[in-house]
Amino acid sequence: MRNIKLTMEYDGKRYLGWQRLGDSDKTIQGKIESVLSEMTGEKIEIIGSGRTDAGTHARGQVANFKSNTKMELSEILDWLNRYLPQDIVIKKVEEASERFHARYNAIGKQYSYYIWNDAIPSAFERHRSFHYPQKIDLNRMNEACRKLLGTHDFIGFSALKKTKKSTIRTINELSVQKEGSMIHFTFSGDGFLHKMVRIITGTLLEIGAGTMELETIDKIFENKIRANAGETVPAQGLFLDEVYYH
Amino acid sequence: MRNIKLTMEYDGKRYLGWQRLGDSDKTIQGKIESVLSEMTGEKIEIIGSGRTDAGTHARGQVANFKSNTKMELSEILDWLNRYLPQDIVIKKVEEASERFHARYNAIGKQYSYYIWNDAIPSAFERHRSFHYPQKIDLNRMNEACRKLLGTHDFIGFSALKKTKKSTIRTINELSVQKEGSMIHFTFSGDGFLHKMVRIITGTLLEIGAGTMELETIDKIFENKIRANAGETVPAQGLFLDEVYYH
Repeated sequence: MRNIKLTMEYDGKRYLGWQRLGDSDKTIQGKIESVLSEMTGEKIEIIGSGRTDAGTHARGQVANFKSNTKMELSEILDWLNRYLPQDIVIKKVEEASERFHARYNAIGKQYSYYIWNDAIPSAFERHRSFHYPQKIDLNRMNEACRKLLGTHDFIGFSALKKTKKSTIRTINELSVQKEGSMIHFTFSGDGFLHKMVRIITGTLLEIGAGTMELETIDKIFENKIRANAGETVPAQGLFLDEVYYH
Repeated sequence: MRNIKLTMEYDGKRYLGWQRLGDSDKTIQGKIESVLSEMTGEKIEIIGSGRTDAGTHARGQVANFKSNTKMELSEILDWLNRYLPQDIVIKKVEEASERFHARYNAIGKQYSYYIWNDAIPSAFERHRSFHYPQKIDLNRMNEACRKLLGTHDFIGFSALKKTKKSTIRTINELSVQKEGSMIHFTFSGDGFLHKMVRIITGTLLEIGAGTMELETIDKIFENKIRANAGETVPAQGLFLDEVYYH
């Protein structure tokens, strides 16, 4: 049986997120599975590198699926892009080794979050960024980023309740760049807990706006209390950029 | 009576274009007039620098209107951005001299056109660019641009039928830049005939793809036959960037 790896981008606006929900037609996984099942005549299930929430976008989500199809990779690519809706685009179709598993084998991910930081909103960026009109001190925010780098228990920066699984993660890169009115956050690390990128971004915004102290970050690492961190910023500013494998 | 100048951006996707059509709610002009009329209690008519076609976007459209309102400029800005749909954003509201007329006083305009030049479409750029997967020779296209620069009768590159008005225009700048898969055309000149930017872009694409000779441009200037030029590329790749005044 072949094991086929897909790399894709999607505009998450119209969808309830990655994960299939019953027979719902409103998920990315569901859309792709139904096109692949029709294409192969088999009942295809795809494994994503991880879920993305409702409204979240991807520029480099990865998934794999098993199939006996005899189609060439380029034919599969063409078929998918012909029959998928235009807001889901398959960028690459590759043959993977039998044991490749898009979730278990992922060793890291990169996410971006975009803030439109201007008194006036943007007609064009509104579906791909969060409009935050307050003044932001980028230096303060960069200082806060340095505190977040490295290996920590991030449970206080996540939407998780108590769990037996490890909530220790490593952030290798956390950068903030401003170009015009757009602030671009880049997160790269070995994994991210549920809503962790959006909660950290919300915390950085409050620190940048001066309504939260820098030391609050140290406190949250100690007391692990989610309520001490910033708000969860909306899904529409979040992009899964890339999934890393060995 | 005050004369107030508006500078605005809009995502043209949902609209039938700039110009009000009867009582239609589907035009940019109509949307802005109805918010202003409600705001002032007067029957407001706005004058745009020119029409934009259905589906065309603007980053710097300019308009003016007369009113007796006593509201401050910042209040007008806030009111408009609160009550207009999110895909129309007013960027500036200014007091203009009594004689300022957004159309008659315009001395030039800049437009952009975007081509997504990749075998694989883009999930994110599809509403703001035209997907053209064929290989393009940028050097050939740049040579063609040089032929179009300057003062010419552009009627063969327009959707106009015979007209008594002058169809002579001057293009001061016509540049083509590629960044990643996106080709960005910039047009700047003293004025553009109906669909001229889209027809020139369609012509440049055929020259770049090698299906049209460079000399065809000279021929169209001579014989003024629209059918010799390229296809009209779709409205969704076109942006009115800026309107120039003295």
